[in-house]
Formats: sequence, C-alpha cells, structure tokens
Amino acid sequence: MVKLKGDERIDFLLAEENMRIIQSDQVFAFSIDAVLLARFTSVPRTRGKILDLCTGNGVIPLFLSRRSNVSITGVEIQERLYDMAVRNIELNQLEDQLDMVHGDLKDMPKRLGNGKYDLVTCNPPYFPTPANDKRNSNEHLAIARHEIYCSLEDAVKACSRLTKSGGKVSMVHRPGRLADIIHLFRKYQLEPKRIQLVHPKQGKEANVLLIEGARDGKPDLKILPPLFTHKENGEYSEEFREILYHGK
Amino acid sequence: MVKLKGDERIDFLLAEENMRIIQSDQVFAFSIDAVLLARFTSVPRTRGKILDLCTGNGVIPLFLSRRSNVSITGVEIQERLYDMAVRNIELNQLEDQLDMVHGDLKDMPKRLGNGKYDLVTCNPPYFPTPANDKRNSNEHLAIARHEIYCSLEDAVKACSRLTKSGGKVSMVHRPGRLADIIHLFRKYQLEPKRIQLVHPKQGKEANVLLIEGARDGKPDLKILPPLFTHKENGEYSEEFREILYHGK
Repeated sequence: MVKLKGDERIDFLLAEENMRIIQSDQVFAFSIDAVLLARFTSVPRTRGKILDLCTGNGVIPLFLSRRSNVSITGVEIQERLYDMAVRNIELNQLEDQLDMVHGDLKDMPKRLGNGKYDLVTCNPPYFPTPANDKRNSNEHLAIARHEIYCSLEDAVKACSRLTKSGGKVSMVHRPGRLADIIHLFRKYQLEPKRIQLVHPKQGKEANVLLIEGARDGKPDLKILPPLFTHKENGEYSEEFREILYHGK
Repeated sequence: MVKLKGDERIDFLLAEENMRIIQSDQVFAFSIDAVLLARFTSVPRTRGKILDLCTGNGVIPLFLSRRSNVSITGVEIQERLYDMAVRNIELNQLEDQLDMVHGDLKDMPKRLGNGKYDLVTCNPPYFPTPANDKRNSNEHLAIARHEIYCSLEDAVKACSRLTKSGGKVSMVHRPGRLADIIHLFRKYQLEPKRIQLVHPKQGKEANVLLIEGARDGKPDLKILPPLFTHKENGEYSEEFREILYHGK
C-alpha cells in the first residue's frame, strides 16, 4: 500500500492501461506537455537505457514503460517530487524497470557517466526566472516552471553529455524558443532530426514544440504532421484522445 | 506588345486579377513555393522599399505589387531570366512600381547599398551543387535549382546586409534546412519571428518552410497555423485555391 502525503491524490495516467499516478496541485501535477513528449519521442524498445531529466512525479518514465522494455531512470532535483516519483514506481509495480535519482541534472554526467544513454528525454522549466516578488510563491511550482535551477542551456548540455554518440535527445518546450533550442542543440552536438508542432486547433498558432536530435548525427530534419489537440467545438480531437487514454 | 522568345508562353499568375506572366519550361517557370512566399511575407504597404533576390522571371515582385504600393526591385543573375522579368513588368504595365537588376546577389550590398530595404524576399536555389555529370544538363534550370552561384549562406548574408535595422527578411526553403536557416539567420543578425510549415495534406510531413526574420530583432517567434495544399481527395484545398487564384 503506497502512502499519500498532504493534498496528494491518485489519478489515472492511461485509463485503459490501468496506470495510475500520485499528484498534487500544491506540489506537482503532470502537464499535457509531458504526455505529448512521451508519445512523440523515439524509444529504444528492447535494448539500451533511457534517462528522463526534470522528471517531476515520474510521469514520463511511467508512460514510456508502456512503449519500451528497457530500463528507465528519472532525475529530479526537488526532494518532495523525487519522493512522489519513487512512490509512483511502487504504485504501478514497476520497480524492475524504473528507478529514480535525486539530484541536479548538471551533476548527472559526473554521477551517471558520460554517453551512457540511448535516449534522454527532458521537459524542462519553460519560463525565464522572474524577479523574486513576481515568482510563484509556491516554491515547488516555481522551480518546476521557471529556469531557477536549470537554464535551457544547462538542460541541453546535460542531455547531450549523457547521451551516447548516435543516441537521441527529445525535448518539449514552447514554440517561441525554437531558435534557441536549435542553436543550443547544434552547440552541443545534437543534430535536430524530428520536429512536431502542436496547435490547440486548426487555424491557431502552435503552443507546444516537440523536438528530437541525434548526438553527432548528420543533418536530415523532418517536420512531422502537426497535431491539433482540440476540435472546432472545443472537445479533444480524436488523435489527442488516443494519446491521453491509450498512449498511442 | 511584349515579344515572346523561344518556347515562352504567357500564363495567368492571378487569374482574377488579370495578372499575366511570361514563362518557359526550358528556361524558367515559377513554382508554387514562390507564390507561397509572396503570400506569407509581411509587406510594407505604403512606405519603404522591397527587394526580391533570386527573382527568376519576377514572379514574387509581380505578386507583391498586388499587396503593396511601395517600389519593388528584383535581382536575377541569369541574363535570360532577367530579360524575361523585364518583359513581365511591361506585360503587366508595372513600370512605375517594379524594376529589375541583372547581377549576382553577392554584389548587391555594394551596388544597391547596405541596409536600404524594409523587406528582402528570397526563394533561393534549394539543392546542394551536384557533381557536373549529375547536374541538370539544362544550365538555366540547374542554376535556379542548385547552389551553383549562391549557397544558402550567401543568400542569408546578402539578405541581411541589404535590410534596414528593424526590416524583415522572408525566405522559402525545404523544411530539412530549418536548422541551417535558423543558424545562419542568427549568425547574420536576423532574428526568426514567423514560421509557417506547408504540408501537402493533413497527416503528411511538411514539404515547404516559410520563415521571416527581423534584422536586429528581439527573440519572439511565432509558429503560424500550418497550411495544407491538398484535400484528402487530392484536389487543392480551399485555402490554397484562395492563394493561387486571388493572392490571399
């Protein structure tokens, strides 16, 4: 029996797969963006190792455990979230495939080794660090959302160092940072290979960017069909429902 | 009366606008990509100056004359195409607004002046220069399609030099070059501001990339709604018809 703390609750992650996840509005609840990344990324299916940086409550490792049989490690800097992620592994009885590390992603190349992973995923904090008085006064949420402990460059650099030559790095971010991400990917030997834009509806600007690069790869970029999360009438699109409920 | 040479013919450019264009399958016929760029780009409407590099038979200046009242200059390196572009101005009686320059875009900052244009558009050759024996044996088509006289970096550099601080550069290219274009835009002080991907159909990868940057601009990139050129049944989409027939 897994223990819940404070205002934590258990939600379904993939309803049809009977996968469940502990979260909390006060501490951390996973975002749609994490689900989009977990479905977008290429995965090594039967051999290799996966690392997920900025894992939060471990939503991406949980999701990826349905797409791959390889071992998956999550890294989280906030102890409270790391603890939630550990209990999420127990809750879903995934101790044989998943594990969690508590620490700063900047220290991971030293702790986990350079170039050891076939895939590194990352849903980093999106927003520049605001002045102290404009920050979310909830420190857990502020750290997850703002570049307080981790700039975009820190994240890309760590992803690159941890990935094998030929391995993949997948990231989700805001479309407004596309130029920065491409610049940083190339700076750290990650060649952009696949991009997908997510739009809230047909006819609207993109609100989510998914990008995958190959460590030391050759230029050969594909821009996938766009994904629309909602229909004209405001309901989730069929395609997006498939992702949310079946992980497809 | 405008004279036709060799296998030239007169086609409609925007049927409903009674705009016509001289082209030739042996020498140069405009592509859909040029039309997409001419419709995508921001334009200064009543003040300023526009320059179109790699203008071919002048399709982009012709098209833009319907969107803007400012003076528009086209630059073409191939004399045979430059001559066609000059006759296209006459054919449409646009001598007061449009003019053509015969020369290499690399020489244009010296000939036309640095930072003189509010907008520079460019539909450059897309393909790396192949070995001589694999090139299109038609030299006119080879020059228009391959980076023989003009690499992507030459094009971006010329665009940047010719544009005023705060002015815009709009370019069309293959999606596979997105990372290169963003890298080169930033290298030459062009901050990417608007991107649109064109897909042949829903569910297909992008086949055309439209990108606009601002000279010395601040980072603030928007990814516009995607454009689909065809419907499921293979016919042109309504949106694309509007562009082709009405320039909207």
